[in-house]
Amino acid sequence: MRIAILLFDRFTALDAVGPYEVLSRLPDTEVVFVGEDRGAVRNEVGSLSLVADAALHEVSRPDIVVVPGGPGQTDHMSDGPVHEWLRTADENTTRTTSVCTGSLILAAAGILAGRTATSHWLALEQLSPLGVTPSSERVVRDGKYVTAAGVSAGIDMGLGLAGELADEDTARRIQLGIEYDPLPPYGSGSPDKAPTEITEALRNRSRFLLEGRS
Amino acid sequence: MRIAILLFDRFTALDAVGPYEVLSRLPDTEVVFVGEDRGAVRNEVGSLSLVADAALHEVSRPDIVVVPGGPGQTDHMSDGPVHEWLRTADENTTRTTSVCTGSLILAAAGILAGRTATSHWLALEQLSPLGVTPSSERVVRDGKYVTAAGVSAGIDMGLGLAGELADEDTARRIQLGIEYDPLPPYGSGSPDKAPTEITEALRNRSRFLLEGRS
Repeated sequence: MRIAILLFDRFTALDAVGPYEVLSRLPDTEVVFVGEDRGAVRNEVGSLSLVADAALHEVSRPDIVVVPGGPGQTDHMSDGPVHEWLRTADENTTRTTSVCTGSLILAAAGILAGRTATSHWLALEQLSPLGVTPSSERVVRDGKYVTAAGVSAGIDMGLGLAGELADEDTARRIQLGIEYDPLPPYGSGSPDKAPTEITEALRNRSRFLLEGRS
Repeated sequence: MRIAILLFDRFTALDAVGPYEVLSRLPDTEVVFVGEDRGAVRNEVGSLSLVADAALHEVSRPDIVVVPGGPGQTDHMSDGPVHEWLRTADENTTRTTSVCTGSLILAAAGILAGRTATSHWLALEQLSPLGVTPSSERVVRDGKYVTAAGVSAGIDMGLGLAGELADEDTARRIQLGIEYDPLPPYGSGSPDKAPTEITEALRNRSRFLLEGRS
């Protein structure tokens, strides 16, 4: 099984590394980070670079695609090499997946048309204009399309995929291997649970958070 | 505030990227990945490379140090440039921290002598011979030393640190920003919660999981 994780400038690191840490532990599975070109790709903060070990044209038939989000998503909302690669890859995938605002890229490429999907909570309203029904669930499945909510939700998505692609025992072994028994010190992980003033503070900065623009 | 995250060959990616994703969002904070030399550093699976933007000698006085774990930890259990750098940095840090088996490196460098710390659950028993009292808590604080359990525990540690280094509201904003409202699909994240046969399966493979040796 070959899994391709897309990288692009100003991606969010945990969007990519969360599912990676789970899926790379599946038996008989090869994960490859793929970018428009080979080489280091920098995140939105600017202090982290992950290496794309393959260029798009070198990975033509992955079984699974993972598209992370991040402010750089805004550079991939119109046709171009990334959309072409995604559409071609999607013809052969058993799962086409995204984390955070990666779903906006899939939607803009026409891959999620008529489907239900999720995204970062601040970006959910951007799905409808792209022909996608938004859902605020943490992980949303619609056929072979699996989308995860913001950033850290990719870990939960990865474990769900592990159970489907291998079996439940394998997924449980991976969960125990990465000791994923989360204990967040603050109960502020979703807009419903966070104090109203915290949620509103982020809403007011949403363009900066989603697109890196003030 | 300057935060240095150590990279070494065969590190575990999420150990480093979990705390990074939280701490890099702190205001007025610079995070730098540091390695023995500058350049790409490959994880234990072999399919992920993070770039060390600085060499050890270029980052002499970080305020905070984060040491990830991973099978490559076994290469850093005796004196050498990494231990020297850690000991020197520790003289000036406000927090010296680790995720997973990163605590074994800190312990081997003598930095945790007489302290209480945690590690990956499979590695806890390795702390006592290094003069450290083991604790199976997910995040352990002893003075300025903060250690996290296996892999994903670094996210929880990062949020706790964010609350201490900035303030609770900032930590809550970061938690909501990364939508950290975890929903693991299987209740197998700790040896106490996983089915016995899953826990035993991992115990039997512990040398492979911890050290990459079969």
